Amino acid sequence: MPKVFFPDGKEIMVPQGTLVAEALQEADIEAWLPCGGQGYCGRCRVKLEGSLSLPTEVEQAHLSPGELAQGVRLSCQTRIEGDVRVLTLQSLTGAQILTGGGDLPAPALHGTPLLQRLEVKVKPPTVQDQRPDSERLEAALGGSYRIPLSILSRLPALLRERDFLVTAYASGDELLKLEPGKDHGPPYAVAVDLGTTTMVAYLWDLEKKRCLGTAAAGNPQAVCGDDVISRMVYAGDKEDGLFRLQALAVAGINGLVEELTAGTGVPAREIYQVTLVGNTCMQHLFLGIDPGCLGKAPYVPACRGPVITTAEHIGLNIYPRGIVEFLPNIAGFVGSDALAAAVAVNLAEKAGNTLLVDLGTNGELLLATRDGIFACSTAAGPAFEGAGISAGMRAVPGAIDKMYLGEGGLQWHVIGSLSPRGFCGSGLVDGLAGILDLGIMDASGRIKTPEETTDPGNRYIAPGDRGFDFCLDPEGQVRITQADVRKIQLAKGAVAAGMKTLLDHVGLRFQDLDQIILAGGFGNYLDINNAQQIGLIPQIPPERVHFAGNAAGTGAQMVLLSREIREKALGLTGKIRHLELAGTASFSQAFMEAMFFGPWN
Amino acid sequence: MPKVFFPDGKEIMVPQGTLVAEALQEADIEAWLPCGGQGYCGRCRVKLEGSLSLPTEVEQAHLSPGELAQGVRLSCQTRIEGDVRVLTLQSLTGAQILTGGGDLPAPALHGTPLLQRLEVKVKPPTVQDQRPDSERLEAALGGSYRIPLSILSRLPALLRERDFLVTAYASGDELLKLEPGKDHGPPYAVAVDLGTTTMVAYLWDLEKKRCLGTAAAGNPQAVCGDDVISRMVYAGDKEDGLFRLQALAVAGINGLVEELTAGTGVPAREIYQVTLVGNTCMQHLFLGIDPGCLGKAPYVPACRGPVITTAEHIGLNIYPRGIVEFLPNIAGFVGSDALAAAVAVNLAEKAGNTLLVDLGTNGELLLATRDGIFACSTAAGPAFEGAGISAGMRAVPGAIDKMYLGEGGLQWHVIGSLSPRGFCGSGLVDGLAGILDLGIMDASGRIKTPEETTDPGNRYIAPGDRGFDFCLDPEGQVRITQADVRKIQLAKGAVAAGMKTLLDHVGLRFQDLDQIILAGGFGNYLDINNAQQIGLIPQIPPERVHFAGNAAGTGAQMVLLSREIREKALGLTGKIRHLELAGTASFSQAFMEAMFFGPWN
Ligand code: FES
Ligand code: FES
Repeated sequence: MPKVFFPDGKEIMVPQGTLVAEALQEADIEAWLPCGGQGYCGRCRVKLEGSLSLPTEVEQAHLSPGELAQGVRLSCQTRIEGDVRVLTLQSLTGAQILTGGGDLPAPALHGTPLLQRLEVKVKPPTVQDQRPDSERLEAALGGSYRIPLSILSRLPALLRERDFLVTAYASGDELLKLEPGKDHGPPYAVAVDLGTTTMVAYLWDLEKKRCLGTAAAGNPQAVCGDDVISRMVYAGDKEDGLFRLQALAVAGINGLVEELTAGTGVPAREIYQVTLVGNTCMQHLFLGIDPGCLGKAPYVPACRGPVITTAEHIGLNIYPRGIVEFLPNIAGFVGSDALAAAVAVNLAEKAGNTLLVDLGTNGELLLATRDGIFACSTAAGPAFEGAGISAGMRAVPGAIDKMYLGEGGLQWHVIGSLSPRGFCGSGLVDGLAGILDLGIMDASGRIKTPEETTDPGNRYIAPGDRGFDFCLDPEGQVRITQADVRKIQLAKGAVAAGMKTLLDHVGLRFQDLDQIILAGGFGNYLDINNAQQIGLIPQIPPERVHFAGNAAGTGAQMVLLSREIREKALGLTGKIRHLELAGTASFSQAFMEAMFFGPWN
Repeated sequence: MPKVFFPDGKEIMVPQGTLVAEALQEADIEAWLPCGGQGYCGRCRVKLEGSLSLPTEVEQAHLSPGELAQGVRLSCQTRIEGDVRVLTLQSLTGAQILTGGGDLPAPALHGTPLLQRLEVKVKPPTVQDQRPDSERLEAALGGSYRIPLSILSRLPALLRERDFLVTAYASGDELLKLEPGKDHGPPYAVAVDLGTTTMVAYLWDLEKKRCLGTAAAGNPQAVCGDDVISRMVYAGDKEDGLFRLQALAVAGINGLVEELTAGTGVPAREIYQVTLVGNTCMQHLFLGIDPGCLGKAPYVPACRGPVITTAEHIGLNIYPRGIVEFLPNIAGFVGSDALAAAVAVNLAEKAGNTLLVDLGTNGELLLATRDGIFACSTAAGPAFEGAGISAGMRAVPGAIDKMYLGEGGLQWHVIGSLSPRGFCGSGLVDGLAGILDLGIMDASGRIKTPEETTDPGNRYIAPGDRGFDFCLDPEGQVRITQADVRKIQLAKGAVAAGMKTLLDHVGLRFQDLDQIILAGGFGNYLDINNAQQIGLIPQIPPERVHFAGNAAGTGAQMVLLSREIREKALGLTGKIRHLELAGTASFSQAFMEAMFFGPWN
């Protein structure tokens, strides 16, 4: 029987012809089969090598020749013919929140991280060579370092304990830890994408250049408000509001770190660096910086950053003197998450006009043109993430993630092939496109009465609290209410108006866009046609629309992995020009227009 | 009646012809009259301007024409003829421990301190200018600053409280404190000379360029040992020894700060910087750095420095985030005190061969030649400071500070014209020279029996615990015992052998010395002839021997006052070449020879 080898060293035997998905199940790995293994979603990706069935037609439809050449396969389609090694499982687990956009690009993996472990033999002193211990350590390390007093005070003993053989952990020129001898652990570090709604953390072994695990959770600040505006109000109005928001963010990240260390066995005290990205408000709140002035005209942040502090100062449960770096924001609400996304997709070096859309709770737009990069942010709100929508939910089993007009009416797909419990973001977009198409809803967003519609549309209309609701069946609870439509309309309007205003500002029409890159948890699963149909994104040929996954998280990891990429990122932040939309007449006008559902024109 | 104006604003009226010393008494200023106003000591110096009596012969003997031209007078000699302004009193008060060498040189007083108060109007943001608050603050401050998170977190509120008018306190590019509005206090700072035996602190208003006060005390570490060697042993052998020594040093300096703030009304929390100098062992102990390897071959310090930390980290009771900087040591035991002394006397720019001798508990020698500056240290011990000597005491009232062979035997002078209680350092040197001259003691340091001597020598010999003692009168307690002689002999031998070895090393004879500068608490009051007579310093023409007072303290203040001088000092430390004496054959040889009393040859 063929053997299957897993990344964690586990191996199992399975009969020839076994589906990879079955083998994963056999090995107790919770395989993610969004479409229940029907070959419909194309998301059950796994990277394999060994003796496998030839790519099916379904796989060829979902995977590019390049992906196939790299060993990427769909686990519900590929059969095991002989011994097989499973290389990465990342896309198969923890998929409720999008944690990665696949493997990191080579420059990140081949770069030199800022955080390093250095095993060195220090030259012992002699009467002829009486240099101070600190200088002989620096000579061995090959550079000038800031040695904290806590290490300096024990330096003579540390050097001499193992005959001048020591292991140093340093981030840039900051010496963080010094241990006698060698055979100490590798330098672990964590990248965090601190989103308004969700937080994702990535644990890295910076020497092996291996992501050991990812963990994701909702941002616990949500109890203080769904979006940045309500959190800023909370910080300003509640007693200790800012303090509480900071504590919640820190506790949330500590929870992710705990999950990562529990899952991998990496001791938390051996994590020496945390690099964070997030929008400007998240940055302020995490650092305990008063975001008040960010929330009212003229919308100024307290700082740009990078803000560098220590774990013990901020309260993160890693190595106490470990470095905590929040990458710099760009301007206004356009934060380091947008910067990281730009880094991840290499926006600065794109040839044509490229629009990068990070569709989080706070929609951030970056437009690269030959005249430079322009940025703006729009308060999309968490509607597209399912929050605040009556039947909204994350892309977890039970969520409708696809809906389309088929024979005999609407058809939908439920994650995990369960009975539907609600809509995730992509399902909401599909749903709105569908009911627009069916004539159930007009362009102004009003859900019509059953009398105003004809079959099959009128099957999906039921009276609601305010006007009428769209529902899968009149008795069911899975509905998009009139109030839901209004919320999505505001979000859609804000994003589309942001794009329009940004394009106007640089003198481009949407037809001039060579590429749209959609990033963020929601963007990745979007049906492009439907998104264009309701006017969320402009109507350019769909093949010019690409998905970048959680580009912010990817960028944060890249910065953690390569000091060159970090330098580039820091350099980029000052070069991006920011367009403030809030309160401008042109945005207000575009917003009014973009509230209407329908393709751009 | 003429008026007398004092530096603190006080003014009094005195009859014409009043002695300055009497006027001081009148004004409740405790005037220091070491020789009781007899014109013998020349130490009751004061700087005056206005209508005064012409310099007496006594004054002309004690003061150089240059000093007289600057208004320096002896208070016990000068009479008030009309209105008079008293410019400085420094040498009149707190004189038990030498705290200053007079006024600081002009480059220090005209330099720009690293620590500054900056009152700035920050440009308020507009929709056209959305730079972050931190960047607009930096633009107003005219540079790039490290803004700690504690300030950053309140930055928006701080800027807006007084309509973008703020007062910043910064040390170099470290922003220490930011206050709304103006009219906050000046930047206060303290320079500390942390000696093995004594500590001196100087409180400065860095804007007015005024030393507001000096305070001095014994180093409380003395309870753990008199010299650096015994303290290193204590640090290494006692449980928590290092910790205790650090705590003692910090507590000692806190005591000085308390005295300074109590005496001046300056709030301790408005002192933003402390700059310290001291020998390498004092540096290590103050910073809590294990000095173990400094005490045994090959005598390597843990670090050179400068070591910069914060007040709260080290435990100094000033502004918690205030900067604490220990200036860099040179090498081995030659510490930042020697560096500061070199800065104070401008050693790097001396034309001829200049030997700077800092005669503290740890004797540090710097020799400037056309080939550069060379340094070494000798463990002189605290004998010359009166410690460990049976009748040793500091130069306070009751101490014999001068002794000479007069008609009918020895004559001595007691500080404060009291009956003698003991000897201070200069008295010990005079005493030894005297008994050598009288033939009471031979060159090997043995005190002879009364039988071996003749009148008047034999009047001063009395049986002691070990052999015979030298005593002022046979019944009295004020004696130099045989054991005392041995201790002084070791100290004298160490210093003289250090000089000899250093001169040999650079290929100079003592006759090639163009100048000897004596610094340190004890050096300043030395009788040059007697010091040469016993062989403590080489016999060059006495007019080429100069006193620099507490040059280390002066240098520390200069560094505090001028970033240019600080840069020079930091640059100098690496350029001084160090000669390790301990354990070398040439030093041992020179030491054996230098134990003998008698002039150099
Ligand atoms: S294509 Fe494999 S699970 Fe959907
Ligand atoms: S000379 Fe004036 S007190 Fe001594």
